[in-house]
Amino acid sequence: MIVIKVGGGAGVDIDAVCADVSAVVQTGQQVVVVHGTSAAADSLAARMGVPARTIQSPSGYVSRYTDPETLEVYTMAAAGQVNKQLVTKLQSLGVNAVGLSGVDGRLMGARRKDAVRAIDPVTGKQRVVRDDYTGRIEQINGALLRLLLDAGYTPVIAPLALGLECERLNVDGDRAAAMVAGAINADTLVILSNVPGLLAHFPDEASLIRHLGKNEMTRAIDLAGGRMKKKVLAAQEALEVGVPRVVLADSRRPNPIRAALEGEGTVITQ
Amino acid sequence: MIVIKVGGGAGVDIDAVCADVSAVVQTGQQVVVVHGTSAAADSLAARMGVPARTIQSPSGYVSRYTDPETLEVYTMAAAGQVNKQLVTKLQSLGVNAVGLSGVDGRLMGARRKDAVRAIDPVTGKQRVVRDDYTGRIEQINGALLRLLLDAGYTPVIAPLALGLECERLNVDGDRAAAMVAGAINADTLVILSNVPGLLAHFPDEASLIRHLGKNEMTRAIDLAGGRMKKKVLAAQEALEVGVPRVVLADSRRPNPIRAALEGEGTVITQ
Repeated sequence: MIVIKVGGGAGVDIDAVCADVSAVVQTGQQVVVVHGTSAAADSLAARMGVPARTIQSPSGYVSRYTDPETLEVYTMAAAGQVNKQLVTKLQSLGVNAVGLSGVDGRLMGARRKDAVRAIDPVTGKQRVVRDDYTGRIEQINGALLRLLLDAGYTPVIAPLALGLECERLNVDGDRAAAMVAGAINADTLVILSNVPGLLAHFPDEASLIRHLGKNEMTRAIDLAGGRMKKKVLAAQEALEVGVPRVVLADSRRPNPIRAALEGEGTVITQ
Repeated sequence: MIVIKVGGGAGVDIDAVCADVSAVVQTGQQVVVVHGTSAAADSLAARMGVPARTIQSPSGYVSRYTDPETLEVYTMAAAGQVNKQLVTKLQSLGVNAVGLSGVDGRLMGARRKDAVRAIDPVTGKQRVVRDDYTGRIEQINGALLRLLLDAGYTPVIAPLALGLECERLNVDGDRAAAMVAGAINADTLVILSNVPGLLAHFPDEASLIRHLGKNEMTRAIDLAGGRMKKKVLAAQEALEVGVPRVVLADSRRPNPIRAALEGEGTVITQ
């Protein structure tokens, strides 16, 4: 069983990734796909005239500032546009994909971060944001995923969760994929992005770190910058929930998933 | 087993309908919800500056002119906004709803109407439209619905289908509900809208037709106008695929579904 996180960035080659998902599914492996939404949500927000704002936490993680209006845009981009685009593409490649979000069947239950401390990008001071609908996943309905997998379907999950008060929440796709991988006892979590893995000296791709062990994760999180920081955090969380292997891998190459499964990228083990 | 079609019009009281779905589910009945999208798709199209156009067929049916750009808007409104709004609301009422569209698990397979004959609204002449992504449902994956129902989930279906070339297609929600009801051998299909049922003299609500038999359907379709025409057609198609009872009922009253099941509205039987 494999969980594959497909990035939501602008440069991701969806056709190549889906073709490789299809190749892996055809070998008889059970696969769950979790996808991002960032580029689609940004572009829809721009088109609708909704400002796309980010929050930076004091510990340096950047996330989408998801006020109620942004949550609507995010829902449409995540569960509508990106999810159905992936499902349709996979169907055309012979994969019987079923798109879900975390609100469906309580697939992903999260706790809302209801008073987020954020760094004001202008003043650099900390301020408290109260209308942010972002959550941290606490529970996965693994039974629903197994029900679908055992019936031959390939779940494709949009990063939306159901909060404790049944509110919809934006959740990070990488960390969602980590929790999903733990819940279904996946052998491997592959996190695809537009770099070859964790780089010791970003952006020098020759400085790829080929292997990390559990006790090196804190240092790796410090080393990582930008979007990679959360991917390394997600990898650490995956190890914590029992996933034996995480691969941070490059989605820009042919057969990106099979290459990752063969060890191309940053391979992180217990 | 009951299939409930919830209208996508602007006036639908989603809270009342969802509360009644919850009440019916709590009696132990298996329920499938199919929803419309019209108001949400219109409003999103307006916000995004995409013109909302309609096509009128020579036989008098009006549908959304779904060119590729409109299909993207329609997908986001149907599978994103409306579907997740309903699922979240039902979850908050204790119903373990799972949102799906027809592309998910090949739930609804359709044939694209690839050269639609349409009436030009200005000249009144017939013209052929070739870039319309609207389809007619030919196949339902009833096994996926039964899998979810038997595991205690309540499927909530957005009116999108998968075409023969794996393209996404806009399909009519009422007719989709009819096909779904047939595929899962539902006892009753309830089609909710903002009128009490089929009216002999629209808009005189006192002229409600309380009962129709199978052999009266052609006359009823001729009698119906506007959006009701397709609902009566959907009822006829439901009878044709073996559904024993269809109720065209009013969503504006308290307990709209239980009232419909007790015979309030236009009751149509084999």
